[in-house]
This record gives sequence, structure tokens and C-alpha cells, in this order.
Amino acid sequence: MSDAGLVGEAAQRVSEAAELLARADELATYSASATGIERTYLSPEHAQVNAVAGSWMREAGLRAWQDAAGNQCGRMEGDAPDLPALLLGSHLDTVPGAGRYDGVLGVLVAIAVAGRLTPGVLPFAVEVVAFGDEEGTRFGTTLLGSRALAGAWDDAWLDLVDARGTSLHEAAYTFGLDPAGMGDAGRDEGSLVGYLEAHIEQGPRLEDAGRALGVVTSIAAARRLLITLTGEARHCATPWHLRRDALLGASEAVLAIERIAREQGSPATVGHLAVRPDAVNVIPGVAEFSLDLRDVTAQGRDATWALVRAELDRIAAARGLTVAVAETHEAPAVRCAPELQDLLRAGIRATGDPEPLELFSVAGHDAMAVAALTDVAMLFVRCAGGISHHADESVTEADVAAAIDALHAAVLALAAEFAE
Amino acid sequence: MSDAGLVGEAAQRVSEAAELLARADELATYSASATGIERTYLSPEHAQVNAVAGSWMREAGLRAWQDAAGNQCGRMEGDAPDLPALLLGSHLDTVPGAGRYDGVLGVLVAIAVAGRLTPGVLPFAVEVVAFGDEEGTRFGTTLLGSRALAGAWDDAWLDLVDARGTSLHEAAYTFGLDPAGMGDAGRDEGSLVGYLEAHIEQGPRLEDAGRALGVVTSIAAARRLLITLTGEARHCATPWHLRRDALLGASEAVLAIERIAREQGSPATVGHLAVRPDAVNVIPGVAEFSLDLRDVTAQGRDATWALVRAELDRIAAARGLTVAVAETHEAPAVRCAPELQDLLRAGIRATGDPEPLELFSVAGHDAMAVAALTDVAMLFVRCAGGISHHADESVTEADVAAAIDALHAAVLALAAEFAE
Repeated sequence: MSDAGLVGEAAQRVSEAAELLARADELATYSASATGIERTYLSPEHAQVNAVAGSWMREAGLRAWQDAAGNQCGRMEGDAPDLPALLLGSHLDTVPGAGRYDGVLGVLVAIAVAGRLTPGVLPFAVEVVAFGDEEGTRFGTTLLGSRALAGAWDDAWLDLVDARGTSLHEAAYTFGLDPAGMGDAGRDEGSLVGYLEAHIEQGPRLEDAGRALGVVTSIAAARRLLITLTGEARHCATPWHLRRDALLGASEAVLAIERIAREQGSPATVGHLAVRPDAVNVIPGVAEFSLDLRDVTAQGRDATWALVRAELDRIAAARGLTVAVAETHEAPAVRCAPELQDLLRAGIRATGDPEPLELFSVAGHDAMAVAALTDVAMLFVRCAGGISHHADESVTEADVAAAIDALHAAVLALAAEFAE
Repeated sequence: MSDAGLVGEAAQRVSEAAELLARADELATYSASATGIERTYLSPEHAQVNAVAGSWMREAGLRAWQDAAGNQCGRMEGDAPDLPALLLGSHLDTVPGAGRYDGVLGVLVAIAVAGRLTPGVLPFAVEVVAFGDEEGTRFGTTLLGSRALAGAWDDAWLDLVDARGTSLHEAAYTFGLDPAGMGDAGRDEGSLVGYLEAHIEQGPRLEDAGRALGVVTSIAAARRLLITLTGEARHCATPWHLRRDALLGASEAVLAIERIAREQGSPATVGHLAVRPDAVNVIPGVAEFSLDLRDVTAQGRDATWALVRAELDRIAAARGLTVAVAETHEAPAVRCAPELQDLLRAGIRATGDPEPLELFSVAGHDAMAVAALTDVAMLFVRCAGGISHHADESVTEADVAAAIDALHAAVLALAAEFAE
């Protein structure tokens, strides 16, 4: 065994991280797909991982429950009952073909940190939250779980439908929730001290810099659009000059988005594209594709979109197509609270990194939604090759141990500030 | 009424064409889709249109039956029993979102011509065939019905599956056919005199030239390929230099195919494109698309494909993707028999067009499959705007009347040749 020579605290730390990795492996077995990880909001797999995470929360000394929106929660009281709580958490839902750590790592680090704390001692309560929807895979709208906790639940979401035509209302009912009461998951502002989230970086900067951990300064402004180009479905015998091929237009658009987004420094992704009628010998009459656009600021993001929009009009005019655009998601940039960033910075320093790297998060996170209610900050953990949303997601045991140490140190530092 | 002034033969011709258009409207009501026409091989709608067409065949004086592969047939004997037959026909299956005339027109013109003939008089039998599969929409392989009649049925096709996972074997059984006996639909070479097919042009050349009808000289060589580009599915936060985006590669490929095919004069269409995992915030790891490639000759077609293939390799290398190609269909160019072309030319002249236009068919047709067994020729009918495979497919009553006249005249001319 590699840790045969370790004694005392060091051995405990390694076994904690090893246990966390084993737990991530266990959660990965709860999947809707036989060939990869896929776990969506209000699915049977969601109910299963909530139960397992709840059991680990109880083991860690927390009182555990599932909230009105399907988030799995656990709470440890402070040195008096009903004190405001410091939230630690992330999400348990995944994209299709997911890896084992996106979201899951943050929930498991939070449980591990809670497991190190002594109930009834800290000057605030500590809660672990495992959000039920961050990715938005099932209903096309993201952050449903964290927005519910932040008091931003919208009953109109009950009418959202998944790819099989099941409404969120129906899914919630099947899951055992009261569809009419999901907004009750919302917390009061005064009941919270702040929110800290650990998450894999989903980028290569920590790896490139040889660091295990980093402090997130802000989370990107994001916008998601569904773009539909419409031409005319015709037989493949149609001469070139009579064709109004929606896929040719979409292909130009996808390449133009890459060019403009690179020039502007706004990360952009076309992750969905579908054509109709989608027959081998029929010119596509409709091509529909998604655009996910990010930027450090909402202004930068919107400037990039304006350039893309103009290019869509130019392409459509040249090919005899029409353009329709629907916005499916919009999130402003979120700045992490400087005081909480300082706590995480101190926590990372305690792991032996004197000058923690500051990172900008291109990816969205539950912290964005929670920021509407209380201060938030995030700790990024190095992931191999910067890979995420893929079966190859990978973290090291040593980095996981460092993440637990850093978050634990940040919680203790906050307690020390309270005592001052 | 526009034909109020017509008398005798002219009035009869107009009412024949009007009846034909009404029949096309009636067939259009048999659809798997509530919003458009979709009628695939061995579907319930296929059984329904076979029954209706069979009833019209009987009305026209034919003995009607459904053959072992699900083609609807009707036969009128000649001046002796069991004479070799002249086949007249086309197909009743459609693409999704189809028009009312592609295939259907040829079947209805054949029935109308048979209805003008007197049983027991001609020196050959006349058969009308309504093929069950030309488009290949359901099982991805085209011309199943006409290839069965041509004696080219392959029992391996029983393992083909449709989009819902139903095998052709199961579909045939449900349809009431004996899956093991579908090859019995094959005819003997000696039992046939030839095959004549009327079909909408699916192109604008007749309309541009102001002609109702044209003679097809040959049918394009075709090749269908399924191309898969594979990169890596990663989170949309991945920096540009680490992305291996399969959709960006596919978009370049789709545009390269357009450029190369236009330069080479080989009609090419990408009608199907799908990405995986197809999630709004995940870079596509896989993009799969079809290529339908046509040319006057197989050599021209293959030369164009070689250029496209080289470009695929260049694009894939530049973007860190791999390329996989599967050929799903290959058909050599088919030359229409000069003697049968002459009969159709004479038939068109009889309608008042002294110098019938000669056309090359980019689209594939049942005649391609039947050509393996007997001589074939085709008559093209003007369609509005050259539009086909679309709800806007349209023909005029006058053009339909001319098509019936021309095909009827061609049959009589063949009979006259037999008498010589």
C-alpha cells in the first residue's frame, strides 16, 4: 500500500480522500444509461443518490432531509440552536455521458468537511446541500435546484417538459414531491452566513500551473440561444440554384460563431444541432442549433452575440433562409464575495500553496443561483487535462485531500472571524 | 366549370385527369403523420393504399393481388393467356413530409392507361405495379420493393431495423407477409416485355422549357455514405486549444462537399446530421452525417467522392478528429433502353410536342432496380417549381392528361411493333 508509511493525521487524510473517491465511484453506478453516467433531475437515479448522500450526511453527524424541491440537505447545529448556517455544497445531477466528479466532488468534499467538525461548537450552523438540478439536462432550464433554495422558484417551470413529454409537474409528483409546494424550498436571507462550493476546474489552468487548488474570483455571464434556420425541404435532385438548404446555412453559422467567439475571447459552444426532415435524400428544410455563449462580463457576452446575430442575418440572406432566435437562459456575471474568497485563499495556503491561483469560471455553477440570496465563493480542484462532462474526468487522491483540508480550514477561519 | 365547352374525347381526357388528381388527394390521406404525408414500407398506411390501389386496378379491368414482397400488382391478359407482360408502374411509399405525386402519379397514370385498354386484345399482357419501397425511408435501404420484383431480394434485409427497433422481418410478419418467402416476388426474365414508368421530374427543366413531358435518357449513378467524425465531448468551459469539436469539423465538411460537388457537377446532399451527446453545454464529441452523391456516370461520382474523402481527412487532421465512412447504398448509372425511349418519344409527339425534351434523372427510381431484369424507360412530368419531397409538390390537370395520353400511345405503339 502506498500509504503504509503514513501515521496519524496524514494517514487519516489519505483514507478520507480514498473514501471520497470510492463514494464518487459508487454514485457513478446510479445512472439512467448502461453505457455511461446520466442522472437527471427528479429521475429514479436522483432519488437513489439523494438517499445514499443522506445516509453519508447522517454518518457525518448531520440531520438529513430532502427539501421541497428535491435537494438533499444535512445540518449540524452550532453552539446555539437555529443559528444562521454556512452552506457547503454542489450538485448531484449530470449531463449525459458525464464524468464522476462534476458536482459530485463538491458534495462529497462538503460531507467530508462536515465529518471533521464537532456539533454544537461553531458560532454558526453548517449545512451540506446536494442540489438536484444544476445542468438543466432534463428540462432544458438550468439551476432549478439551487434557484429553488435561493427563493427564485417559478411555478411556471412545472409546465416544462422533458424529451419524452413528461412535465416537471408530473416528474415531481412521481418523485414524491408536492408540485405546488416546491417553492417552499426557498430559504430566508437571514438564515444563511454564506455559501462555499468546491468543484473541479473544468479547464486546464491549474494543471498547467502545477497547482492542486485555486480560488474563483467570478463566474461568467452566460446566455443560451436556440437558433432556427428555415429554408425549403426538397428532393436531392433539386439543382443548386433552387436549393435553400438550412444545413448549409447552419454549417456556415457554426464556423462563424467559432471565428467571432475566438476573436472576442467569449467562449462559445454549439452543442446541439438537428435537421428536419432528417432524411438521407432530402435537402434539410430546417436546421436548429443551440448557442451557449460566455464572457467575463455581460457586456462582452452581448457584444459577441450582436456580431453573431449580424452574421446569421448575412448568411440567411445569401442562402434564402429565415432566422428565428429564442433565448433559453440568461445569467449575469457573478462576483465571488471578497471576504469568502479570502477565507478560501487562507485555506489553500494552509495546504502549502503560498500564492493561490485566481481563476475565472467559464462554467456556470449553483453558486450563481445562491448568490441571489447570500455571499458565495468557490474553490476549484485540478482535473486531469481540464476534461469534464466526459467519462475521462479524473482527479487525484492527493488533490482531493488538499481540497478537504482547504475547505475545512476556511470554515474554521470563518468561525475564528465570528469569535473576534 | 372550365371544361364546360369540351365534348367527347377531350371531355373524357379531362375527367380522367381530374379523377387521377382526386385519387392522389385520397392516397395522401393515408399517412403516419397528422401534419404531413409519411407512408413507409410495410406500415399500416402501406396496407391501406395497396387495398385502395387494388380496388382501382379491378375497376380498370385488371386482376389484382399483393405480391410476396408487399408490392400491389394488377394484370390484364393479352390476346392469349400467360403472355409476357409490359409493366407500367411506380411506387406508393413516401419520404417524411412528402408531396402527393412522387411515385403516386406513376401508379395512377399506369392504372388510367390500363383502364383505356381492352382485355384480350394486345399481343402482350399489361401489368400495373405499385412498388412498396422506393424511398428507403423506413429501413435505410432503398428500392426494396422493385428489387424484390427484379429477383434481387436478399434475405439479409430481414435483419434491417427501423428507427423504433422493429426489424423488417417483424414488420413483414405484422403486415401479413411470410418473411421467409419475400424473394418469391421475383419475376422471370422471360415473363416480361419491358417496364415503363411515369414520374414527376423533381427538377425545373421541363418548366423552364415550357414542356409538359420529357423522355429520360439515363438515371444517375448514386452512392450514399454515412460519415462519422469523432473528437472529444467536453464541457463548454474547455479552452479553444483543447477542443476537438466534431460539429465544427462536420460543418467544414458540409461546406466542402457543397463546393466540391458544384465544381464537379455531381449533385450532392447532406440530408442527415446528428451530434452526440447533443447537450447545449457539451462540445459535440461525435458528429454523424449522410452524403448522397449522384453523377451521370459512376466514374464521375467516384471522382467527386475521392475529392471529398481527401478533404475529410484534411479537416479531421486539422481538428484532431477521426473519420469513419460506411457506404449504405451504391447504384450504377442506368441507361434507358433506346427502343423504349423511342416509344415514349412517339407518345409525347402524339400529345403535340414535336421534339420531346431529353432529360437525365438525378433522382433514383424503381426503374433502376427493374433494369436488372428487363428493359426500362421513363416519362417525366412537369412539376411546379421543380419541387418534390415537399408538401408543395404540384402538377397540372392538363399535364396529367398529356402523361396518360403519351403513355397510352406508347403502349399502343409497342403493340403495333409486335404486330409487324
